[in-house]
Amino acid sequence: MPQAVVLELAGEKRPRHLGRYAHGLFFELLATLDPDLAGELHEAPRKPFTLSPLSGRNRGIFLRFAFLDDALFKPFLEALLAAAPEGLVLGEDRFVLKRVLATPEGHPLAGTMTWEALKGAPARREIRLRFLTPTVFVTSKSGGRTRYTPLPDPRLILNSLLEKWQQGPLAYGPKALAALKNAFELDTEIAFFRGLRFHRVQAGKSFFPGFTGVVGLKLFSDSLEAKEAFGRLERLAFFSGVGAKTPYGMGLVQPELLAGER
Amino acid sequence: MPQAVVLELAGEKRPRHLGRYAHGLFFELLATLDPDLAGELHEAPRKPFTLSPLSGRNRGIFLRFAFLDDALFKPFLEALLAAAPEGLVLGEDRFVLKRVLATPEGHPLAGTMTWEALKGAPARREIRLRFLTPTVFVTSKSGGRTRYTPLPDPRLILNSLLEKWQQGPLAYGPKALAALKNAFELDTEIAFFRGLRFHRVQAGKSFFPGFTGVVGLKLFSDSLEAKEAFGRLERLAFFSGVGAKTPYGMGLVQPELLAGER
Repeated sequence: MPQAVVLELAGEKRPRHLGRYAHGLFFELLATLDPDLAGELHEAPRKPFTLSPLSGRNRGIFLRFAFLDDALFKPFLEALLAAAPEGLVLGEDRFVLKRVLATPEGHPLAGTMTWEALKGAPARREIRLRFLTPTVFVTSKSGGRTRYTPLPDPRLILNSLLEKWQQGPLAYGPKALAALKNAFELDTEIAFFRGLRFHRVQAGKSFFPGFTGVVGLKLFSDSLEAKEAFGRLERLAFFSGVGAKTPYGMGLVQPELLAGER
Repeated sequence: MPQAVVLELAGEKRPRHLGRYAHGLFFELLATLDPDLAGELHEAPRKPFTLSPLSGRNRGIFLRFAFLDDALFKPFLEALLAAAPEGLVLGEDRFVLKRVLATPEGHPLAGTMTWEALKGAPARREIRLRFLTPTVFVTSKSGGRTRYTPLPDPRLILNSLLEKWQQGPLAYGPKALAALKNAFELDTEIAFFRGLRFHRVQAGKSFFPGFTGVVGLKLFSDSLEAKEAFGRLERLAFFSGVGAKTPYGMGLVQPELLAGER
């Protein structure tokens, strides 16, 4: 079940490389419980979790973890709570785990939703996504070229979300998938964007370009399947993130839910 | 020879639909001198001129016209000067032509450059373009769909400029053209963007989405031809504009010339 929790930590100072340290902490915690799982996950090209340091007010440090799968969330939480009494190590410093916030009441970026509830999202012709951390797409090219696209291209956003949806238990079959990709390619357009900013940020060992801001996407197709997928992927975005390097803090997205069907 | 002039007009008030009226004025002026040329041009799918109302300070009204070809600039200027004593009609009002500014000293958006000088632009690995008026690309799709992309996609920007370059006397041959398109497709990336804003504006009879802001594009290729094309297209952008609806005020671009080669 897709799940997002926010950890509130307290310590002397905010670490400089919080994203990288938190990534390390995550794998260490996991390795204490299940070294095989941690090793497998570390090698996996697509990691089924996102990890985002949140810019906290005051001295609090907030780390958000989101998972698409209980198989990862449960051991992580277990290891976290087991390690908490000694404090959590981020870089060279030790931090106290003050709270684990798991509901929207505790933190607006925490919450949970079943795959069935995601599937049951209202059909939509327009969705709005708030990209809270820099977001980028890997648009690789022939000849071993790796290229990055730090722009809210509707096709790239929707295909990234669709790919993440396909990792879940309610994946589309090949025919429906092809029809959706076709609709996203032919029948979508930017409705608007607001506050779009360019960034260059460290994610893991390298620096990547990325954008933040609010983006509206619209669908021209009358296909019910495409409108339903729009609604589902909007909800999924909160848990899956969008684009590349989401386990390093990039691509954190909050849907701006629209009132009713458009 | 590519040429950009700025007309300063004076009148009682600024017309509401300045872009549309100015477009009409342009064709009327041309028709008085050469009805065949005006008719032909009006039907042409790609018009070799740009027309941009500039947001003027005070009560002045500034209209910028840019041409890639003397064959259009000369009759236009002739007709303009012939009509000036009676005043120029924009919508329902008559305006006095105060000045025709043809050099960068007179107005930063005016000037002229030979095709040879454009061709001789320094080779570049990075160019910066300031999109002064909303810019959009028509990215049409199969099945008669017309889609718009209001994003500074490097490939769309460069291919738009390349297409405009090909209308001039120093067009690339088929082989060089294919190599350039390939380099633009595979070896370019956004270097940065700044102040990117979304707009929806009227251009002619319809409304279009578009973006303004400053965008840097970088080239990864070591090909001298590609670097030379980067430099040439950066200079061309000032005269040709970028993207769709440039005869209605969209896609007005000012290159932010970089100091030296990067």
